[in-house]
Amino acid sequence: MKSKKGILFAADILDKNKLFNVLEEVKPYISAIKIGNLVLYQHSLSIIKEIKKIASIPILADLKLLDMPNMVGKITKNAVDAGADGIMVAGSIGIEGILECKKYLNNNLLFVFTQFTHCDGLITEDEANQYIQLAIDMKCDGVQVPATVKNRIPKVRNMVGPDVILISCGIGTQKYFENETEGPSIGSAIQLGADYEIIGRSIYQNSSPMNAARAAYNIILGILE
Amino acid sequence: MKSKKGILFAADILDKNKLFNVLEEVKPYISAIKIGNLVLYQHSLSIIKEIKKIASIPILADLKLLDMPNMVGKITKNAVDAGADGIMVAGSIGIEGILECKKYLNNNLLFVFTQFTHCDGLITEDEANQYIQLAIDMKCDGVQVPATVKNRIPKVRNMVGPDVILISCGIGTQKYFENETEGPSIGSAIQLGADYEIIGRSIYQNSSPMNAARAAYNIILGILE
Repeated sequence: MKSKKGILFAADILDKNKLFNVLEEVKPYISAIKIGNLVLYQHSLSIIKEIKKIASIPILADLKLLDMPNMVGKITKNAVDAGADGIMVAGSIGIEGILECKKYLNNNLLFVFTQFTHCDGLITEDEANQYIQLAIDMKCDGVQVPATVKNRIPKVRNMVGPDVILISCGIGTQKYFENETEGPSIGSAIQLGADYEIIGRSIYQNSSPMNAARAAYNIILGILE
Repeated sequence: MKSKKGILFAADILDKNKLFNVLEEVKPYISAIKIGNLVLYQHSLSIIKEIKKIASIPILADLKLLDMPNMVGKITKNAVDAGADGIMVAGSIGIEGILECKKYLNNNLLFVFTQFTHCDGLITEDEANQYIQLAIDMKCDGVQVPATVKNRIPKVRNMVGPDVILISCGIGTQKYFENETEGPSIGSAIQLGADYEIIGRSIYQNSSPMNAARAAYNIILGILE
């Protein structure tokens, strides 16, 4: 995930067969796969190795770990043993939590969740900035930034510099305010400075996930060229 | 969990056979079981039904959910379908997140995680108070409060009143500052106004979990009488 840019596919598909079929369809067009808690609670971390048999694409275990350092370390170890190429933790775990993760990550990547996509999540911009500063200070590999929060991507890119991987969520389906007609368009987050756009429902809820993934890929390719 | 007080056993035991054996030993002395992300990621939510065959004791799925409302709702539904009697979410998910949980909880309980037990977690007391106020406003069933933070339990009990279930973690093993010699003693959190003491390692790391659980039970019984 360090050099590529593109789609980080949010594979939030509960049914295992459907998940595998969709991954088979979309894999030529995506740069990485995000497996989140919906799928992990249902199928356990062992699903990571099953996915690796289908697609040899980096897998980010989006755990959003929010726990004491000792527990964060243990779970990181298990996720890495299960084949995760990276994990995501909550910024609020602080320095000790990050240090415990790093003990068990080997060369796998550490991402920090910083802010919600929806407007009433109780993380202020100041708190999000604090989590981003933590990611910088602790030399984490990447940060999550909501594409739904206006001007946020350029601000964060400016804070973290060019080398931190910026993954941006809320593309396509999500909105910041309930009354908005649509979420950020595909390509818009990369245009503003993100490395990866986290896209889920806009692809897997399409009648043809393959066509939706290809279309998104082509939009992003046009921006990157 | 609404009427009883006592031990909420933090069953953070990765090996399934060991987990089941320990539960068999300690079940006469505990009032509820907390299954957290360590175990859930390894064995999936399906382990809840397996535990219910061993012990007919309420199970709190300590997910510490930190996600957008749509996802929080989906995961809540799956946890309840899997047999959880309650779930825990991060306070920072906000009103919309809590509302989505409530859609799927039926009569099961909703707990809000408010604050870390370790001193460098990036949740300030003001933020923790905001999460507690959210729990009050949204009529959640309970809140988590760290026993390691001095004077915190009486303060929170004062905020939430007598009817909100106060579960307190960090009993026995955890410390707020690294240089403290020991964590809060068993019984101390209930004495200060908590309903449940979350006890894990002090029981399952003992050479006899049964003896450790019985001893803790007797201490708490002495306080409650």
